[in-house]
Amino acid sequence: MSSQPSHPALLIPGPIEFDDAVLQSMSHYSESHVGAPFVNTFGETLSMLRKLFQSTDPAAQPLVISGSGTLGWDLVAANLAEPGDEVLVLHTGYFADSFADCFETYGVKATQLKAPIGSRPQLPEIEAALKEKKYKLLTVTHVDTSTGVLSELKALSELVHKVSPETLVIVDGVCSVGCEEIEFDKWNLDGVITASQKAIGCPAGLSISMYSGRAIETFKNRKSPPGSYFASFKNWLPIMQNYEAKKPSYFATPSPQLIHALHTSLTQILSKPLSERFAAHRATSQKVKKAVAALGLKQLASDPADQANGMTAIYLPENVKVPELMPAMMKKGVIFAGGLHKEIATKYFRFGHMGVSVTDPNRDDIDRALEALESSLSDLGYQKA
Amino acid sequence: MSSQPSHPALLIPGPIEFDDAVLQSMSHYSESHVGAPFVNTFGETLSMLRKLFQSTDPAAQPLVISGSGTLGWDLVAANLAEPGDEVLVLHTGYFADSFADCFETYGVKATQLKAPIGSRPQLPEIEAALKEKKYKLLTVTHVDTSTGVLSELKALSELVHKVSPETLVIVDGVCSVGCEEIEFDKWNLDGVITASQKAIGCPAGLSISMYSGRAIETFKNRKSPPGSYFASFKNWLPIMQNYEAKKPSYFATPSPQLIHALHTSLTQILSKPLSERFAAHRATSQKVKKAVAALGLKQLASDPADQANGMTAIYLPENVKVPELMPAMMKKGVIFAGGLHKEIATKYFRFGHMGVSVTDPNRDDIDRALEALESSLSDLGYQKA
Repeated sequence: MSSQPSHPALLIPGPIEFDDAVLQSMSHYSESHVGAPFVNTFGETLSMLRKLFQSTDPAAQPLVISGSGTLGWDLVAANLAEPGDEVLVLHTGYFADSFADCFETYGVKATQLKAPIGSRPQLPEIEAALKEKKYKLLTVTHVDTSTGVLSELKALSELVHKVSPETLVIVDGVCSVGCEEIEFDKWNLDGVITASQKAIGCPAGLSISMYSGRAIETFKNRKSPPGSYFASFKNWLPIMQNYEAKKPSYFATPSPQLIHALHTSLTQILSKPLSERFAAHRATSQKVKKAVAALGLKQLASDPADQANGMTAIYLPENVKVPELMPAMMKKGVIFAGGLHKEIATKYFRFGHMGVSVTDPNRDDIDRALEALESSLSDLGYQKA
Repeated sequence: MSSQPSHPALLIPGPIEFDDAVLQSMSHYSESHVGAPFVNTFGETLSMLRKLFQSTDPAAQPLVISGSGTLGWDLVAANLAEPGDEVLVLHTGYFADSFADCFETYGVKATQLKAPIGSRPQLPEIEAALKEKKYKLLTVTHVDTSTGVLSELKALSELVHKVSPETLVIVDGVCSVGCEEIEFDKWNLDGVITASQKAIGCPAGLSISMYSGRAIETFKNRKSPPGSYFASFKNWLPIMQNYEAKKPSYFATPSPQLIHALHTSLTQILSKPLSERFAAHRATSQKVKKAVAALGLKQLASDPADQANGMTAIYLPENVKVPELMPAMMKKGVIFAGGLHKEIATKYFRFGHMGVSVTDPNRDDIDRALEALESSLSDLGYQKA
């Protein structure tokens, strides 16, 4: 039994439902940000993040900063690229547009390689683009929260290292870290940015990211100073290294309560093999996608190889509208998200299936959501063709 | 009786001790960041912030963003000044150096007007500086957390408006908002930046700030785009206006749990006249400062007019060292902070007296701290000369 008050199941692609123990960690009594107990908790949290990224390379560095997933874009754009640099942004939806905007803010020239809605740029196109121009870095949205499209990282990274070995491989993993397989070292990734409130299962308020030794060398070899103060590696790298070495250190006050919650969620995640966690998300995703197909509904991501495992983006049936479906679902105790991709926002909805809603056997969130979806559509007059 | 587990009283100049109800709000079950219940909570929180700043000007705008006090510097430097602009930074300790660093990051030329340690730049010097050069804005640290020096805002703002009426008046109120009087409209302030974890009494993780209509016009009239993406007014102003109008809107995911906690702390603060809150902080501060003097100890801020009401920075007696005093205090259940001002960091300590430790009649934090200080110094062989 959950100790949380009764509330609708939040099944959007983040924030997700949180475990009781994680939420209780948010209420931790006040601690000094430079006192031994908290420094120890923060240090352990960083060490656990290395495990979540399946990384053992001591040259790599995780960062946890008060902020949101969006702050990760500034971390990349202000530290790993310099004004005038060219970067290649693989576009699968809303978030590539914003990442490109962020690069432009810091004087970095972003070229977008776009795919049709529900698809992703293919390796041959990417290869051609990399051969055309020298890019300082390439970004890929691992799971595009606006479309539910999953990108393939391993083959992509291999391609970049083969065709343009100096180009850094940067992953927007906001909607993938914790529910999709990521082998940071083995796949030769240079940066993965994410946030706390999705598959990591900790309330929002933290920007979480991981950088390779190569990315950090790129930063150290900059000709110009970093373009941001709050997001500067110069200010944060020594702090993170100190926390991990259990030494007090100060640049900006972290949030002890959020770090405690992250410590709790990472402890829970790492208490079982990660492979089991990813398999559970794949299995639930398959169940959702089969149920959606059985209802006669189509996903934005039409190719099964492009379908994310932590969320599903689903076209509405003709004649059913988002402002009708959402309140109908809410009455049955389930919250879904509307569309986010600018061009088709009103034509689809999103179902998030990450974290405890997937892994906790005491929860029936997913089954309830599928039942609520079927009966709500029926209530709204939809019948499978 | 507090529902928090027994723990040492955290009496550093932030984070402070938190009220039970505030900490419990941190454990709020998960909500959608764009759903009506949370949008309503965020909107009310912004409206309450206006009251905290004693502002009724609809052209002014409060901002609440996941981050820390430090992010406030980026908000000012990246939005209210442009590359090549000159700004005047009044220096009372550690934080002016960092604010100046932040300006330089965004290509803004910062001139520091320094005062001796424990003092603050005087109005005639400031007037002379303002007459020498045209400054886009002036910054003042209301309470310098590194020295316990309080700056006088009303007379300063009058001076700036008289001598250099186009110069924006920007206040670093990280250690003052919630415990020192601030009349945003009446004093013609253009920006006050602060954080959640000090006198506002909400756990760390939020950058809180307030800008005048004039500051926002200055932003709108920029010739160059803002220098930051995550800290861009362009991205945040419409979001805050929408939240206050109770309309869902998205740029970066806020932290519902932290916003709930801020909502609770602001509700508590505003349940009584602000004047009573400021008076309580003044009274406790006087009590602390008298006790410190009775022990024969000296403050960094020697002039009573320069002494903050939410903290006291105290020189150590000869022959007593920070690494001796801190564990002695900890044994008696009290946590103080060491020194922070680079030039004299080992020679003093800091005692924070803000929030529930001051206002909650059921707490005896301050008395216990004063007793612990006296007995610890005695244990360490100190006797009043």
